[in-house]
Amino acid sequence: MKTYSQLTVAERQEEYASLQQRYNDYKALGLKLNMARGKPGVDQLRLSAPMLHILDVDDCIVDGIDARNYGELAGLPCAKNLFAELLGTKPEEILVGGNASLTLMYDLMAKAMTHGLLHSPRPWSQEPVVKFLCPSPGYDRHFKISESFGMELITIPMTATGPDMDAVEEAVKDPTVKGMWCVPKYSNPDGILYSEETIDRIANLKPAAPDFALMWDNAYCVHEIYGEFRPFRDILTLCREAGNPHMVYEFASTSKITFPGAGVAVMAASVENQKYIESLLTYQSISYDKLNQLRHVRFLKNKETVLALMQEHAKILRPRFSAVLDALDKEIAPLEIAQWTKPMGGYFVSFNAMEGTAKRALALCKEAGVVMTGAGATFPYGKDPKDSNIRIAPSLPPVEELKQAMDIFCICVRMAALEKLGL
Amino acid sequence: MKTYSQLTVAERQEEYASLQQRYNDYKALGLKLNMARGKPGVDQLRLSAPMLHILDVDDCIVDGIDARNYGELAGLPCAKNLFAELLGTKPEEILVGGNASLTLMYDLMAKAMTHGLLHSPRPWSQEPVVKFLCPSPGYDRHFKISESFGMELITIPMTATGPDMDAVEEAVKDPTVKGMWCVPKYSNPDGILYSEETIDRIANLKPAAPDFALMWDNAYCVHEIYGEFRPFRDILTLCREAGNPHMVYEFASTSKITFPGAGVAVMAASVENQKYIESLLTYQSISYDKLNQLRHVRFLKNKETVLALMQEHAKILRPRFSAVLDALDKEIAPLEIAQWTKPMGGYFVSFNAMEGTAKRALALCKEAGVVMTGAGATFPYGKDPKDSNIRIAPSLPPVEELKQAMDIFCICVRMAALEKLGL
Repeated sequence: MKTYSQLTVAERQEEYASLQQRYNDYKALGLKLNMARGKPGVDQLRLSAPMLHILDVDDCIVDGIDARNYGELAGLPCAKNLFAELLGTKPEEILVGGNASLTLMYDLMAKAMTHGLLHSPRPWSQEPVVKFLCPSPGYDRHFKISESFGMELITIPMTATGPDMDAVEEAVKDPTVKGMWCVPKYSNPDGILYSEETIDRIANLKPAAPDFALMWDNAYCVHEIYGEFRPFRDILTLCREAGNPHMVYEFASTSKITFPGAGVAVMAASVENQKYIESLLTYQSISYDKLNQLRHVRFLKNKETVLALMQEHAKILRPRFSAVLDALDKEIAPLEIAQWTKPMGGYFVSFNAMEGTAKRALALCKEAGVVMTGAGATFPYGKDPKDSNIRIAPSLPPVEELKQAMDIFCICVRMAALEKLGL
Repeated sequence: MKTYSQLTVAERQEEYASLQQRYNDYKALGLKLNMARGKPGVDQLRLSAPMLHILDVDDCIVDGIDARNYGELAGLPCAKNLFAELLGTKPEEILVGGNASLTLMYDLMAKAMTHGLLHSPRPWSQEPVVKFLCPSPGYDRHFKISESFGMELITIPMTATGPDMDAVEEAVKDPTVKGMWCVPKYSNPDGILYSEETIDRIANLKPAAPDFALMWDNAYCVHEIYGEFRPFRDILTLCREAGNPHMVYEFASTSKITFPGAGVAVMAASVENQKYIESLLTYQSISYDKLNQLRHVRFLKNKETVLALMQEHAKILRPRFSAVLDALDKEIAPLEIAQWTKPMGGYFVSFNAMEGTAKRALALCKEAGVVMTGAGATFPYGKDPKDSNIRIAPSLPPVEELKQAMDIFCICVRMAALEKLGL
């Protein structure tokens, strides 16, 4: 079998016509398939069924705190203990807040804007320029938080071991660079595990900004798909040992452990940071939903039981990831028109189409009823300079739908590549 | 019986000595009694027991939306319907968000600071001065939100019919006056029902600021203590009819209907406002906790059932309010040293001690183990110019404890008054 670049124009035309036939057949079916977002599938949601009945109204007092009433802004002590165990931090470094780590991240940035962080000379809204480092491809919602506050987004290339640290170390010499977005384990979308060296270099950064915020989104900290749990080092300890105790804010949530949007989110940070943030948070909230915290503590219990639950999630996710990877191996690999990741965990397959074809491929997908994350979304300002990266989210659709969606996706990627090569 | 001002010095000294004896006896008991916050009592919390078991994992899809998964930023349609019915607004004017209306208010002010509101010429953080009207006595947490963002707090006197509207109408001529805090029904702490005329004048305000924000905290909209539900007019309609459709943001929550801090909060505002706010909210959140929304919809059902539930709350609250009022009638009224409200709903009795004695009275209370909301808290910057207003929150303690706490409170108020009159 020839690769696409080896085809003559006539062969490409023939190939295109055949693909177009298959494409039109699919289009006629009027399908509605969605691989846009990292939404758990229905089978995963059912794993947390017992949590919906786990509380009784007369059994909601723990450590002398009534989870049914106002109070305990930083969260139930038992919930802090659980997340401290999962993240390897101390309970006093944990804030258990709300349902979404995204909101905790946004709120931290909002407070940086209006009030400044612990060591800010002034609120960021009073700074002429605020820049933020965005390892890319990355998580679009991270970048959009910074963008929405008018920050300047600085692209940092992602490598196989995490952000390009030479570029990061250079960039943080600029005192207007106020922070960096990171997903250290199973990065979104590449599924990369930051290497030990990368993490050490990050912890040892010497940013010019005294209030540099390392936004450490450990969204997939226990989210293995293949194999056993891979331990990670506590970034708070590493930063503390490197003389940067207040630089890091770590985030996690149970959105992909229990119920998305109805889970529990946490922020881990130094005790001094927690104190400072709580001093601002006290104007925003009396307390977060402690009943939901208690539900989670009773259901998730401890790290061991969480990891066992995550293996059940993995069992459900594996056939979906395999369906994606099998389709790509079969339909795309021989043509040498794209590369992609084979993640061991997380929620995505990161696909790099032939340069200049991602937008076109996704437009074709959309026309045939397959919705994907928009091309470019994984880059600052939604602009992929190579128009190549596509994030595939296989978790939501049932396997049969997914196979169909991937068949259409592969057709579209091939058509776009042939168009680019010339017909 | 003589009033305190009729007593001779010798009589005052005798009275003081007798009170001091009772005070010391109480102090020796080492009590810990709390009337500081409007926290529902345990019996109230138990009314919502069925809600903790009301969801089944396979019965969480409503209107085609899976409440277990991400999505629907503005809330479940069925939840919007419920709150629209309660508030008398249209469902499309409702945002169902999070657990706490306080957080919704804070977030709106935060967004005003960082991005501006719908008709803001610029973000408020870029304004040299932002002033906010604070009808006082009022809710300390409202005032502290404004204060935390560096706004200048303008005291507006409260009257028996609501804020002094002459003062308000004059104040809003200043374009730096960007909004006003209101609790229109059973105001915190006075329990005042804003009169029809006051509400009409508020809806018809002509503020110089194009982005004036009427922060309409309808916290006690269905919270009668004595008597049947008292209907209220829809402030959104009134503002719309007065040509101010985008001036008002109405807030409510189920914190004092179901579980405090684990309830559901709403913001009602014009469709244009909702659209604008959602365009900013999309960076902050994927969706709020829809499982908790669904729990509430299934449990609360509709306005009729909510009002029936509120009558159950009232049955529990009435003996507590009576204990407070009875103590004051018996121990304080004959002495003519204070005035207080007899609220028909809400969560507070607003007590005005002899001028210049509130702080001293509460310091005495604290020493004897009775914790109250700090004196001055009901005024901007925590400073009551008359050092008189004290907010009594009778809901949390069991009736027997409350009687004891009120006995101590009355002793302290009397001692402080005698000290002021001179011994």
